[in-house]
Amino acid sequence: MSSKIEDLSRLCVHTLTTKPWDIGTCVKNYSAAGIKGITIWRNVLEDRNLVDVKKMLDDFGMEVVSLARGGFFPSIDLRRREMAIDDNLLAIEQAASVGAPMIVLVCGADAGQSLEKSREQIAEGILRILPAAQSAGVKLAIEPLHPMYAGDRSAINTIRQANEMAELIHSEWVGIAADVYHLWWDPDLQAGIQRCGSHNNLFAFHVCDWNVPTIDFLNDRGLMGDGCINVPEIRSWVEEAGFKGYNEVEIFSDKYWATDQKSYLEKIKQAYLTKT
Amino acid sequence: MSSKIEDLSRLCVHTLTTKPWDIGTCVKNYSAAGIKGITIWRNVLEDRNLVDVKKMLDDFGMEVVSLARGGFFPSIDLRRREMAIDDNLLAIEQAASVGAPMIVLVCGADAGQSLEKSREQIAEGILRILPAAQSAGVKLAIEPLHPMYAGDRSAINTIRQANEMAELIHSEWVGIAADVYHLWWDPDLQAGIQRCGSHNNLFAFHVCDWNVPTIDFLNDRGLMGDGCINVPEIRSWVEEAGFKGYNEVEIFSDKYWATDQKSYLEKIKQAYLTKT
Repeated sequence: MSSKIEDLSRLCVHTLTTKPWDIGTCVKNYSAAGIKGITIWRNVLEDRNLVDVKKMLDDFGMEVVSLARGGFFPSIDLRRREMAIDDNLLAIEQAASVGAPMIVLVCGADAGQSLEKSREQIAEGILRILPAAQSAGVKLAIEPLHPMYAGDRSAINTIRQANEMAELIHSEWVGIAADVYHLWWDPDLQAGIQRCGSHNNLFAFHVCDWNVPTIDFLNDRGLMGDGCINVPEIRSWVEEAGFKGYNEVEIFSDKYWATDQKSYLEKIKQAYLTKT
Repeated sequence: MSSKIEDLSRLCVHTLTTKPWDIGTCVKNYSAAGIKGITIWRNVLEDRNLVDVKKMLDDFGMEVVSLARGGFFPSIDLRRREMAIDDNLLAIEQAASVGAPMIVLVCGADAGQSLEKSREQIAEGILRILPAAQSAGVKLAIEPLHPMYAGDRSAINTIRQANEMAELIHSEWVGIAADVYHLWWDPDLQAGIQRCGSHNNLFAFHVCDWNVPTIDFLNDRGLMGDGCINVPEIRSWVEEAGFKGYNEVEIFSDKYWATDQKSYLEKIKQAYLTKT
């Protein structure tokens, strides 16, 4: 059984969840709604002075949970792999600048090579950026992605694969972001979460729902309660595994993005308190 | 290494692959193209006299590989579960009538209950129809479906789960249909296929490709060579596991359905000979 969620103290919202808002609007409205946790997607930092962004975050008392996202390490093209390293090093700087203690890694895949090869390149990539992450005090969270993204977004598609990768790298700076959307279908999920926690690798927990039917590969996620995922059960597993961090609401939804975002934020709070 | 495909003797095409054609047009054109194997989707049998269909299949020397599809056992509604049993019993009669030695089962899932519960109902459903299948001489092939279909189409999403189900039921009339589209991403696929063969449960092998990007959840499958699946490698695993049956081309594709189907059939033959 999951514990009841009593308040918003562990609620974090991803800026991409309210995609129509810029970073300033996110911060102002999340804060006014009583939401303290924020995961910042890098698109809202483009052309922004990060010192100003950091000051704004502090002024509103926001706690930055993560920066999203780094990764996309694999490529059949060496030059592109090097560009990915550079981009991840930039992400580490950005994370440090805005006070994010962690970066979520969407690890990547290249359809032109095997998944095994892509996983080798993911491990190489993480090891390459690890010293910079450690010096900056920024953790790296491997996010296993749903198998429907194996073609082009991630060659790490189950929590077992993420566990194996994190245990192979074996650094206190590298762990896992577990997202119900990607993992809910896995018959081994509870055991995988337990294993993740027992290695101190459970760094982040993302929630949303799987719509039935789902009509878009990227932007048709549901709000908790909209779909078929038993979010409270998975949260209970995460908590049993020792996780005490934020519950991060990460929803990509053309449907919700087309609605008034302030009303939507209220819906998120309601779904968080009653369906998460 | 996979063996080279030398000829069309093990090529089977699913009627839904050439969806614009009725059963008569499929049979006439497959036969003219030198394709002997056919898997018949039930939609092309609607309002047809099955005695006439069987005679036509025989006249053209076609070998029916499977009838697609039965299954969809789970429901939160008992009445719907009973309707599913009736529909599967009808499918067994249809299979026997057209000379299909096997029915492919898309096992089903109900988003209103857990995947575990749906799997229990799948096992119950298969056990309910098994005596009728056995008397009719029709085998039942459990097809594990990609995890992206776990919400509404199948609670059996990996070859391991299919193996477990088939081994639990433990009947020579129940086995597995392995489709590269659903299974390619699984890091345990080779071992799962080996296990399947060693229990004499590998009943069918379906091929197509995973397009990158994929734009539709159902009808954007690729022709072998279009996408990122290493079909020859998976075929080699299937053959190492002892499979000697047809390679069934099952492609749902709005793109290909919009083209001339005779030219498309030639493309299928080419892709079969060179990319499978």
